Amino acid sequence: MAAGIKYATSLGTLILPVIFKTNQPMPPAPHQTHLIALDWGTSSLRAYRLGAHGQTLELRALPCGIMQLPAAASGDKAALEADFEAAFEQACGDWLRAEPGTPVIAAGMVGSRQGWLEVPYLEVPIAVDRIGGSLSVLRNRHGQLIHLVPGLIENSMLPNVMRGEETQVVGVLNALNQDTAETDVLIGLPGTHSKWVQIRRAGKQCQLAHFDTFMTGEVFAALSTHTILGRGMQAGDDVTEAGQHAFERGALVARSAAGQAGVLSTIFSTRTLGLTGVLDGAGQREYLSGLLIGHEIAALQAMLREQGRQPSQVMLVGEAGLCARYTQVLRAYDFGAVEVVAEATERGLWQLALTAGLLKHA
Amino acid sequence: MAAGIKYATSLGTLILPVIFKTNQPMPPAPHQTHLIALDWGTSSLRAYRLGAHGQTLELRALPCGIMQLPAAASGDKAALEADFEAAFEQACGDWLRAEPGTPVIAAGMVGSRQGWLEVPYLEVPIAVDRIGGSLSVLRNRHGQLIHLVPGLIENSMLPNVMRGEETQVVGVLNALNQDTAETDVLIGLPGTHSKWVQIRRAGKQCQLAHFDTFMTGEVFAALSTHTILGRGMQAGDDVTEAGQHAFERGALVARSAAGQAGVLSTIFSTRTLGLTGVLDGAGQREYLSGLLIGHEIAALQAMLREQGRQPSQVMLVGEAGLCARYTQVLRAYDFGAVEVVAEATERGLWQLALTAGLLKHA
Repeated sequence: MAAGIKYATSLGTLILPVIFKTNQPMPPAPHQTHLIALDWGTSSLRAYRLGAHGQTLELRALPCGIMQLPAAASGDKAALEADFEAAFEQACGDWLRAEPGTPVIAAGMVGSRQGWLEVPYLEVPIAVDRIGGSLSVLRNRHGQLIHLVPGLIENSMLPNVMRGEETQVVGVLNALNQDTAETDVLIGLPGTHSKWVQIRRAGKQCQLAHFDTFMTGEVFAALSTHTILGRGMQAGDDVTEAGQHAFERGALVARSAAGQAGVLSTIFSTRTLGLTGVLDGAGQREYLSGLLIGHEIAALQAMLREQGRQPSQVMLVGEAGLCARYTQVLRAYDFGAVEVVAEATERGLWQLALTAGLLKHA
Repeated sequence: MAAGIKYATSLGTLILPVIFKTNQPMPPAPHQTHLIALDWGTSSLRAYRLGAHGQTLELRALPCGIMQLPAAASGDKAALEADFEAAFEQACGDWLRAEPGTPVIAAGMVGSRQGWLEVPYLEVPIAVDRIGGSLSVLRNRHGQLIHLVPGLIENSMLPNVMRGEETQVVGVLNALNQDTAETDVLIGLPGTHSKWVQIRRAGKQCQLAHFDTFMTGEVFAALSTHTILGRGMQAGDDVTEAGQHAFERGALVARSAAGQAGVLSTIFSTRTLGLTGVLDGAGQREYLSGLLIGHEIAALQAMLREQGRQPSQVMLVGEAGLCARYTQVLRAYDFGAVEVVAEATERGLWQLALTAGLLKHA
């Protein structure tokens, strides 16, 4: 019976191309590419082949982030240009040969000063629709147009920038329930550098009003690997119950009286709670993770209060395990409903291409 | 004339030993060793040969910190014991052979779990006099006694520990003007891990009431070397005027409205002020230094206010350049008089030996 199913499937793929070769107007093939969407960051390149409704037909993840290219640090512009061409070819050259003329959009550090083409930042506050209306264009050696998404800058006393996250924000807003269209939304993008984006909505108008950056992920890595705090740590495969308690203990430090000392001081307790036998090696790692995320969320909360903002909805985008950690800390700090949004990047790239008029037949 | 002076001086050193070789009771030779004092930390070992009044007759700095010893990370206890013996011999073996029976005192990480002998912590709050009355003793392979200074622990929600700084605190208090004996003193020990120690005085009684640790120095090193913040930095030989302005700019962030975001967030501006052309490579380094020290001082100030403490005197101990940076930031944050105290370690070791009764003929 199993063999029979296999046979039928094989037969299907053989027969289908024949059926559609008629003179009738051809409906879009279910696997026809409508958009090639690239999420091209510092350390990786993800290429999405998207279908008629923006659904992912195929996904490729390549270790070709802009800082991973062979000539990335060389200062040799021609060599770097060739690297970008080669990575692009590897990511989607065959897709374009199979369906020439498919539009291509790319977001992330590929549009930075160290990228393929520097795309100027757009200034925040900004109407979210304007992002898709402001793509830059690059033509590769085969004449293929590549549309680049601009990053965002907020020129305050301490300027803030993002490249790539603006696309995820667009994807999140696309996934939002339209019934709650009058409320403020807070979008959190935890990662190496967490971004917290404040969205104000009035009807269908969405304004990206303000955003903050926290280097929590990168600070955790640097402290764990390159300071005395890492000396007593052990990385475990799974988080045990004790580890979970250590994480919670750390998360609550920032809102305790002792947390007033600030993160430069409280992190030292990772070591002293080890010295005094309270935390084991795995516990110290979990504790520091909770402690840093707790300081991030406490500071975010203080700023929102200062601004008189109380977001009714918090949306998170990121790696699942990390989103679970942030969800837990947000709840401990009495944030309201927290929702994790999947596929924000591909949704965002699709929506931006739509706004930009790249999907003429969609 | 210059030659004449030289001649007289040489003659003096030749004649003096002869003069004192009489049958009269001999006053102490000016170069006689009264105490061998070791400041034995994680990365270095400093050995002081101290004279009749605690003055330094000779100083040796050796790269023999407890984590620098060959067997430090081996887990081989016998090999580590041999390393400690060898380092001790190198530091002061000849001094002891020249003047057998000279008392030896040592402070710092040599008394930690990874040290030569683990000396239990004393608990804070503590009368400062009790430290010298609580030395532990170790006998080396030649039968020489080595008196080890205990570290301090404060068992609060986030425990705090120090080893070595308690000795510097004793040295600072020894240098204090006795006319102001009723006032609170705040002692700052900037370094890899800054300590801020609160001293309450009532007459000759000094209580070490509370202390905080900030990992500012180590965090600065980790961020500059192992995160994206270092990518745009350049280390300069000297701090230029522009660098000085960048330092000041960073120092004031913590007390600005933007500083409320906390250090995990504000550090990112080191990069964005580079991206936007405000700071050059050397400026980014100075800015981050000022920013971190500013966050430390702002948090310290908030805690002191919370505790209702306003120290009338701030004393600093540490490397001169670093003390100058801290002095500048303390002034920007409206702390009162700031005094930098030199030779706190050797003064402290001398005072502790005195309290411990090791200097019977002093």
